[in-house]
Amino acid sequence: MPQTIILKNVELLSDCDELIQTDITISDDCITGIGTAMEAGDKTRVIDCTDKLAIPGLINTHTHAAMSLFRSYADDMLLMDWLENKIWPAEANLTAEDVYYGTLLAIAEMLKTGTTTFADMYFYMPQVAEAVAESGIRAVLARGMTGLGANALQSLAESEAFYHEYHHTANERITVMLGPHAPYTCPPDYLKKVVSLAQKLDAEIHIHLSETAGEVENCFKQYGKSPIELMSELGVLDCGVLAAHCVHVSTEDIQIMRQKQVRVAHNPGSNMKLASGIAPVPQMLAAGLCVGLGTDGAASNNNLDMLEEIRLTALLHKVNTRDPLVIPAQTAVKMATAFGAQALGLADKVGRLAPGLKADIVLLDMDSPHWCPRHNRLSLLAYSASAGDVHTVIANGKIVVENRRLTTIDEEKLLYEAHKRSMRLTGK
Amino acid sequence: MPQTIILKNVELLSDCDELIQTDITISDDCITGIGTAMEAGDKTRVIDCTDKLAIPGLINTHTHAAMSLFRSYADDMLLMDWLENKIWPAEANLTAEDVYYGTLLAIAEMLKTGTTTFADMYFYMPQVAEAVAESGIRAVLARGMTGLGANALQSLAESEAFYHEYHHTANERITVMLGPHAPYTCPPDYLKKVVSLAQKLDAEIHIHLSETAGEVENCFKQYGKSPIELMSELGVLDCGVLAAHCVHVSTEDIQIMRQKQVRVAHNPGSNMKLASGIAPVPQMLAAGLCVGLGTDGAASNNNLDMLEEIRLTALLHKVNTRDPLVIPAQTAVKMATAFGAQALGLADKVGRLAPGLKADIVLLDMDSPHWCPRHNRLSLLAYSASAGDVHTVIANGKIVVENRRLTTIDEEKLLYEAHKRSMRLTGK
Repeated sequence: MPQTIILKNVELLSDCDELIQTDITISDDCITGIGTAMEAGDKTRVIDCTDKLAIPGLINTHTHAAMSLFRSYADDMLLMDWLENKIWPAEANLTAEDVYYGTLLAIAEMLKTGTTTFADMYFYMPQVAEAVAESGIRAVLARGMTGLGANALQSLAESEAFYHEYHHTANERITVMLGPHAPYTCPPDYLKKVVSLAQKLDAEIHIHLSETAGEVENCFKQYGKSPIELMSELGVLDCGVLAAHCVHVSTEDIQIMRQKQVRVAHNPGSNMKLASGIAPVPQMLAAGLCVGLGTDGAASNNNLDMLEEIRLTALLHKVNTRDPLVIPAQTAVKMATAFGAQALGLADKVGRLAPGLKADIVLLDMDSPHWCPRHNRLSLLAYSASAGDVHTVIANGKIVVENRRLTTIDEEKLLYEAHKRSMRLTGK
Repeated sequence: MPQTIILKNVELLSDCDELIQTDITISDDCITGIGTAMEAGDKTRVIDCTDKLAIPGLINTHTHAAMSLFRSYADDMLLMDWLENKIWPAEANLTAEDVYYGTLLAIAEMLKTGTTTFADMYFYMPQVAEAVAESGIRAVLARGMTGLGANALQSLAESEAFYHEYHHTANERITVMLGPHAPYTCPPDYLKKVVSLAQKLDAEIHIHLSETAGEVENCFKQYGKSPIELMSELGVLDCGVLAAHCVHVSTEDIQIMRQKQVRVAHNPGSNMKLASGIAPVPQMLAAGLCVGLGTDGAASNNNLDMLEEIRLTALLHKVNTRDPLVIPAQTAVKMATAFGAQALGLADKVGRLAPGLKADIVLLDMDSPHWCPRHNRLSLLAYSASAGDVHTVIANGKIVVENRRLTTIDEEKLLYEAHKRSMRLTGK
């Protein structure tokens, strides 16, 4: 692999959304220049990017990657029926190797659809980290913990060990967070233990908050307050929190989230498919919250396509507020890039195309009818682009997708393993 | 081109959604067999379809094809600002040749994303018919008419001439309807003239109905009744009607629509982007209405991707009703195939894969991570597939897309012409 890559004659949008045609120079893992590139030396690879739009690698702020093994296994069901009769029994059979292949399947899909960073919460996390390390993607990993079962304390111990062993590994592509699942699966005493561990490690927290109306209702019944208020009281929100969903949050909740600088992972596809509700994203943004986008697991989406989440975000909130000016293309795209990076605490590394940042870059092929005419690349990206347009993907300076093919993953073997394991797990 | 095509070892879903791996035999323009194919003769082309899913060609029941020339020109605007300051001034400059290229651009996109039939309402319709004839796609064409301007009567005359000249032409791929734009642009006296012409020609009607709340409110103010009631009274609904949008219809309206067998073109992407509202599709389906799917024009979508409309339909109504069982994958897919065919009066020709029907077939490439594992092809199609999966498209027995490339359209020339014309039309 050459040490320098020049993306020649590429189109990109500047920070003020001005369209530029220029070169991007990548040295090792960083973007070192945007502007006419120096003459190429021996170790330089020059890629002609005519008709390609460069965007920052997309950032998926919430998923359960290995659940891609349950894609299309159980759809169009009520949530509890789906969990109790399908997902949980199948998950109970998962081995560490299954999680490795399930995660790699998700990574293969994410890379091919333009995602270069994802935030994951699951279990058998060393295997997840292994898949991340091998594939070249960037990830924020949390061992999911529940305080109700026999594994409650063991999960905490595993989380601590996982943090020590993997935080800032794989050329710093891996960040480790703590992953208490949700207030309804982690009682207050347990969450206090999580907070103590977070303080001890100086680790941040990834948690599901206020996904369904029922869960918020139960929280009020049990504790006389909303999940956000409860988390605030328990000190969870002082640790630096990435909160997934936040569908059913009140104006008061949003004020607390703003004070505590809670970052939100909005998952429109999953929230729509599971009929959870519509998060008040326009209000959150207006209040100054950082809102990124996520796919949630493939079992409830059913893909990990962030271009689709951009589109859903821009469309859903317009129709929900009956205001066509809400979440314009630029905002939706930023939620999947710069805001996503901020949500994961990686704003100094990724989420924008700028010298000094890590080279996480996606080249979209614009040479097709749905990119014509090209009045506004941002509009085309938000409202017209599709996963098949992702042509080349660079993660941490390394080409991981080239002409729509994975370079770091043996896709044929992966699909064979993933399918075989999925059939076994679901008793087929 | 050989006279017989055999799709060997293809996967398809039977009418009862049972998965079958078999062969499809196509002779001339028809499906002549589903089942192990006879030995191939000299004039037979055999296509290996391993890892391909065959689905009926998708049916776009409402668009304004040539508006693809205004894709990405003006987004994230209020409806009237968008129309008055952007779209109408640009449309005023359209020439017949612009409409030809704009339509061909739309057809190129539709074919490459798996659509083999579309219903169009626009002007310069002979040029639209020419693009349809050349490209191999199937279409239901209506000259858009408004009763308010100087062209009111001329539009009627053009519609009649267009019907006589083009109805059932291009190997019967073209059907002509009458296209009164909407109740708010066609006063009652004018609509009566349209009804008379429809009766004289035995032609059906394609019209926009109840797209926005404001338009329904104004109708009540002006006539004391809803647009649906008004159309019923004027005899419009007795002509056989394809009604686009129907976002703001009441339970009483739905009853009238059912009695008059009005077919609905539901456009979730456009309705969401323009913030028009959410059509009560679950109620319509429960009342026994035929509801197909459409993209509307690319200027308000911004693509013509029917797989996306399938997904939006399945997702939007779940979250809107807070019921994850609403519009399951099967229903959403049927809306884009069998129901769409019925909506266009073409159920005896297309919309299903069955011997005797026209060979309008899309082959989707399932060999990629987002199609793995394959527990349920319908779920994968509705919730995970994307436009880039469309590998081969057969329309009326002819291969029009092969390995993701158009066979009937010079794409390079088309994109050049479309872009140049769009820039001229928008003063750039």
